[in-house]
Amino acid sequence: MDLKALANANPDHWSKATAIRALTLDAVAAANSGHSGMPMGMADVATVLFEKHLKFDASAPNWPDRDRFILSAGHGSMLLYSLLYLVGDAQFPIEEIKNFRQMGARTAGHPENFLADAIETTTGPLGQGIANSVGFAMAEEMQRAQYGRKVVDHYTYVIAGDGCLMEGVSQEAITLAGRHKLGKLIVLWDNNNITIDGTVELSDRTDQVARFKSAGWQVIEIDGHNPDEIDAALTQAKKGSKPTMIACKTHIALGHAAQDTSKGHGALTDPEQLTAAKAAYGWTTGPFEIPADVKAAWEAIGKRGAAEHAEWQIRMEAISNAKRTQFERAYALDAPRKLSATIKAFKKQMSESAPKLATRASSEKVLEVINPIMPETVGGSADLTGSNNTKTGDLGVFDVDNRKGRYVYWGIREHGMSAAMNGMALHGGMRPYGGTFMCFTDYARPAMRLAALMQVPTVFVMTHDSIGLGEDGPTHQPVEHLAISRATPNTYVFRPADTIETAEAWEVALTSKTTPSVLSLTRQGLPTVRTEHKNKNLTAQGAYVLAEAEGKRQVILIATGSEVEVALKAREALQADGIGTRVVSMPCMELFAEQDEAYRRKVLPAGSAVRIGIEAAVRQGWDQWLLGERGRAGKADFVGMDRFGASAPAEELFEKFGITAENVVAKAKALL
Amino acid sequence: MDLKALANANPDHWSKATAIRALTLDAVAAANSGHSGMPMGMADVATVLFEKHLKFDASAPNWPDRDRFILSAGHGSMLLYSLLYLVGDAQFPIEEIKNFRQMGARTAGHPENFLADAIETTTGPLGQGIANSVGFAMAEEMQRAQYGRKVVDHYTYVIAGDGCLMEGVSQEAITLAGRHKLGKLIVLWDNNNITIDGTVELSDRTDQVARFKSAGWQVIEIDGHNPDEIDAALTQAKKGSKPTMIACKTHIALGHAAQDTSKGHGALTDPEQLTAAKAAYGWTTGPFEIPADVKAAWEAIGKRGAAEHAEWQIRMEAISNAKRTQFERAYALDAPRKLSATIKAFKKQMSESAPKLATRASSEKVLEVINPIMPETVGGSADLTGSNNTKTGDLGVFDVDNRKGRYVYWGIREHGMSAAMNGMALHGGMRPYGGTFMCFTDYARPAMRLAALMQVPTVFVMTHDSIGLGEDGPTHQPVEHLAISRATPNTYVFRPADTIETAEAWEVALTSKTTPSVLSLTRQGLPTVRTEHKNKNLTAQGAYVLAEAEGKRQVILIATGSEVEVALKAREALQADGIGTRVVSMPCMELFAEQDEAYRRKVLPAGSAVRIGIEAAVRQGWDQWLLGERGRAGKADFVGMDRFGASAPAEELFEKFGITAENVVAKAKALL
Repeated sequence: MDLKALANANPDHWSKATAIRALTLDAVAAANSGHSGMPMGMADVATVLFEKHLKFDASAPNWPDRDRFILSAGHGSMLLYSLLYLVGDAQFPIEEIKNFRQMGARTAGHPENFLADAIETTTGPLGQGIANSVGFAMAEEMQRAQYGRKVVDHYTYVIAGDGCLMEGVSQEAITLAGRHKLGKLIVLWDNNNITIDGTVELSDRTDQVARFKSAGWQVIEIDGHNPDEIDAALTQAKKGSKPTMIACKTHIALGHAAQDTSKGHGALTDPEQLTAAKAAYGWTTGPFEIPADVKAAWEAIGKRGAAEHAEWQIRMEAISNAKRTQFERAYALDAPRKLSATIKAFKKQMSESAPKLATRASSEKVLEVINPIMPETVGGSADLTGSNNTKTGDLGVFDVDNRKGRYVYWGIREHGMSAAMNGMALHGGMRPYGGTFMCFTDYARPAMRLAALMQVPTVFVMTHDSIGLGEDGPTHQPVEHLAISRATPNTYVFRPADTIETAEAWEVALTSKTTPSVLSLTRQGLPTVRTEHKNKNLTAQGAYVLAEAEGKRQVILIATGSEVEVALKAREALQADGIGTRVVSMPCMELFAEQDEAYRRKVLPAGSAVRIGIEAAVRQGWDQWLLGERGRAGKADFVGMDRFGASAPAEELFEKFGITAENVVAKAKALL
Repeated sequence: MDLKALANANPDHWSKATAIRALTLDAVAAANSGHSGMPMGMADVATVLFEKHLKFDASAPNWPDRDRFILSAGHGSMLLYSLLYLVGDAQFPIEEIKNFRQMGARTAGHPENFLADAIETTTGPLGQGIANSVGFAMAEEMQRAQYGRKVVDHYTYVIAGDGCLMEGVSQEAITLAGRHKLGKLIVLWDNNNITIDGTVELSDRTDQVARFKSAGWQVIEIDGHNPDEIDAALTQAKKGSKPTMIACKTHIALGHAAQDTSKGHGALTDPEQLTAAKAAYGWTTGPFEIPADVKAAWEAIGKRGAAEHAEWQIRMEAISNAKRTQFERAYALDAPRKLSATIKAFKKQMSESAPKLATRASSEKVLEVINPIMPETVGGSADLTGSNNTKTGDLGVFDVDNRKGRYVYWGIREHGMSAAMNGMALHGGMRPYGGTFMCFTDYARPAMRLAALMQVPTVFVMTHDSIGLGEDGPTHQPVEHLAISRATPNTYVFRPADTIETAEAWEVALTSKTTPSVLSLTRQGLPTVRTEHKNKNLTAQGAYVLAEAEGKRQVILIATGSEVEVALKAREALQADGIGTRVVSMPCMELFAEQDEAYRRKVLPAGSAVRIGIEAAVRQGWDQWLLGERGRAGKADFVGMDRFGASAPAEELFEKFGITAENVVAKAKALL
């Protein structure tokens, strides 16, 4: 590249973009780690985007109607951090840049949304950002329809690399965006032809332009170092009804000795090469120093949106009180006042009528009373609507001609659905939930983990949660998936035993502000076990005594979900033999672990009573409750699965694998 | 559809295809569950494929040079089972069809490869089959290059539905196939425009023809009910150097009242509608009855390949003894005789030189001695070759002009890589291993689970296995991923402590015939802890005493991988204070659990010694070793992670999260 020609063609632009490149080089050198090449390659694109198109106000990074900027290629985090420092975001003083990748800094190796207001999402695991962005753009469409374009009218911009586009989830994302004509979604592809292993051709020869067009996108191809082309492309992208992909031909690590090589992807720390690159840029200030005029020009960009922001506030005050209150409540993730009373009334009715229902059907019943009073919920399913029971009558279907619809037919895209739901939650103002079979937690995993890490309360409705699904067989029968979700920090895993616990689980899930929830729901019918109404949300305590021992307590049966019925039957048989047996229902291990020790000991007292855990899943995760947190004298056993399931009718499978009251009784007696 | 016109146009074809439809209707009705619509829609395509193109011999379903037939749309399993019964596969008598989806039957809800020889792979989780098929086709290319086209020369045929194509993994698969010009891979797309939730348009409007072309495929569009078009398309597909997608326009549940509806996807059991459909087909025999002439015609198809098979055997005997022996050894998954001695010699050398190495680098050293003596290994990485240390000098790179290459640059496709590796293993004759960062186990999960369920010994090389990766931060730091893999049945999870244990882990992984392995390897350097050479593979025992207590044994420290060093340091400090401390290295919990009780008790004796587990990951899965399988008196604690990590230099992170010898010592003393 002829850097001088670039610089001379547009000196103002060049100095702004060079500031990003210089800060990136300095920060990576100081950290002695990081990724230099992407920020250096995409500095021109980002500069034009921030200078001329992105609607934002650096002094109010949380302004709800800002344009969203998603760095899907999260390893290029110094691009984002440089921009935030340059525009004057108060959370990003120069010290943050100097502390890149150091303990406690906001400038983590990859962008982490919970560390700073201006970081919209957490990226690094490739493809997540572009998949989140579908949810961002859907949320904007929904809220624009709901509140009007005077208060909701913004774009979602994404920078994605070759890695993002090679990940399968990107296909799920772009076909969703194309299907729903998300015209305000604009993806800037850093087309630098380099991956870690070498040139892109080494592993991929996809015609990305044709691919995006096949998904219903507008595609524009430009020189990613030409500010006029970038500007014109962004202007064109904002027009029309299709999502737009701008293929930006760039040079990774522009101007550095490692330009256009895979070495350029990583940490460029060689001092001589660094000096040479800066010299080639015509950059003369010291490390972390930005010339005053350049910094001033960037800060002016940071203030560009302030007036627009102020006008928005005036418009916001002009909408109806009811709408504004709802808007603000939804953005604050506050539940509506009515929620608690609604759930209580529902529980009372259900404990009286005591229906026999699969908990997936219980869940639908709960949603039928919740969705009408929580307009911020968005439901959906990965092509299993009738099986996941996620759709209620009032939601309407989100579509090109019905942006008010609150139900999304996600198609056979568990991963894309989950990542897009995270995007909706991150956008603000929405509470997304979506369903698939629990076994396909596997497909959704990368996004489920990120929901937990990002602290967003996405709700994953996982039905058909055991061998109880029957004939579909081991490919569809989860055995390890409860353990998988429980192993993940900051995740509530609910396995309710009946309609009452299901309602209580939903109440916790929909009032959580920083923790995602997994609802593990049955295919098969279950009796109501909570026939005595209690206003208190017992599921919120994680575990509780469902049936007390009569006589001396010799056995404690701990069970979840469909196996609570098994425990109650086993208790009956044991009590008939004079063996005092307590049944503990444990719908949420994480919430039980959060209770104080006194409560935990009340439910699971120390002492010599035999404990048996019952769950149609692997034992992993149970020993803390069976054996005691620090060892105890009482004996314990577990009734569950230690292998994959099989294809057969459900009742036969429970027999075959010994998940029966008879087996529980036998094991209890063997231990006594 | 005018069924009469179809029948009259080609009565022989029609009766053969109708046999599939009738068996499907009968089997689903008997099971009262299953998926009728797909087999009924794709019966014509499958009939022409089996009758005129597929190279197979029903009496020898394992013949290595058969064409592979992959039912990616696995819910349509009755298509496969009908075909296998009709062609006379001895494992599929009519009783199997009558027992569809019943306990113990080979005719499980979804095809399970381990239940019958002719079932090439396990499908149902959508997209897996098409992704497996990339590995099948690569394996064929590699072996054809290695052994010659006289003994290896076959096609891989796939039937995929809309669901397969919506799953992201299909994009990873088709771009890999296009990149590598896998010209012998032929995908038949069941283009019926129906998903469970409704028409495909409800969730997707992708132009699949353009999409496949963008990935470098040949695409042919046909009427999927016209046998001449099907035949012509298959003939054309076999020509040329590109993989081919044949878009077969079909009617789901052809001829049934539910034709062309989502209801047609599921179980069509209504007796009157069933009768009506058979009448419309002109089918007059009773349930499960195939007219003798039709059955005879199908059985003739089943014998069509016998002569070709016999000729192949003659050609096979003509290749060199060395090649044939190697071919047969690789297909039997037998290790070469030299392997054991090679590993022993390597271990001896390493315990003497005692290098300080990251275990990912240890792994490379091991591969450097293994790959030259095991020509069946195929290495690769999802674009992290230099970081995963998976490439050794002798492998060569698999490419269009180097089919002998044994290293695959998989690109940023963890899921596609893993599913394709499973396909290679299922194909036979290959031992695939592939790497990514351990955190991206999440992306590979669906295929990793299937490796375990399918009983194939794929090796997943997962490096950067803890906060020890440092600055890349929590998006890249696994904390729950050891627990996730350990929760999965039939999976060996190895976390070796040094180069010796790494070699031992590889030896187990590469001699396993039915269990996949996960190697959890460090980014950071570790000392050699096994400085005393032992011929015996101690890792194969799962856990062993690495350092014995001096004096009375008061403490047992159990550690894995990088934390074995921490345990040894803590032991030193404790012993200095006169506290007898044993260190147990536990590189594989699953193998330890498989040992007899006497050995387990020898390593972890009952009694009151304090036990502390040390692993830079969540505690889940540890309590069985800390608390004892059925409760014990001794106290226990755990040093590890109970939250996501952070972005900072690794040493600081170990300090911050207390994974240090000092903390272990403090916890041990607190318990004593």
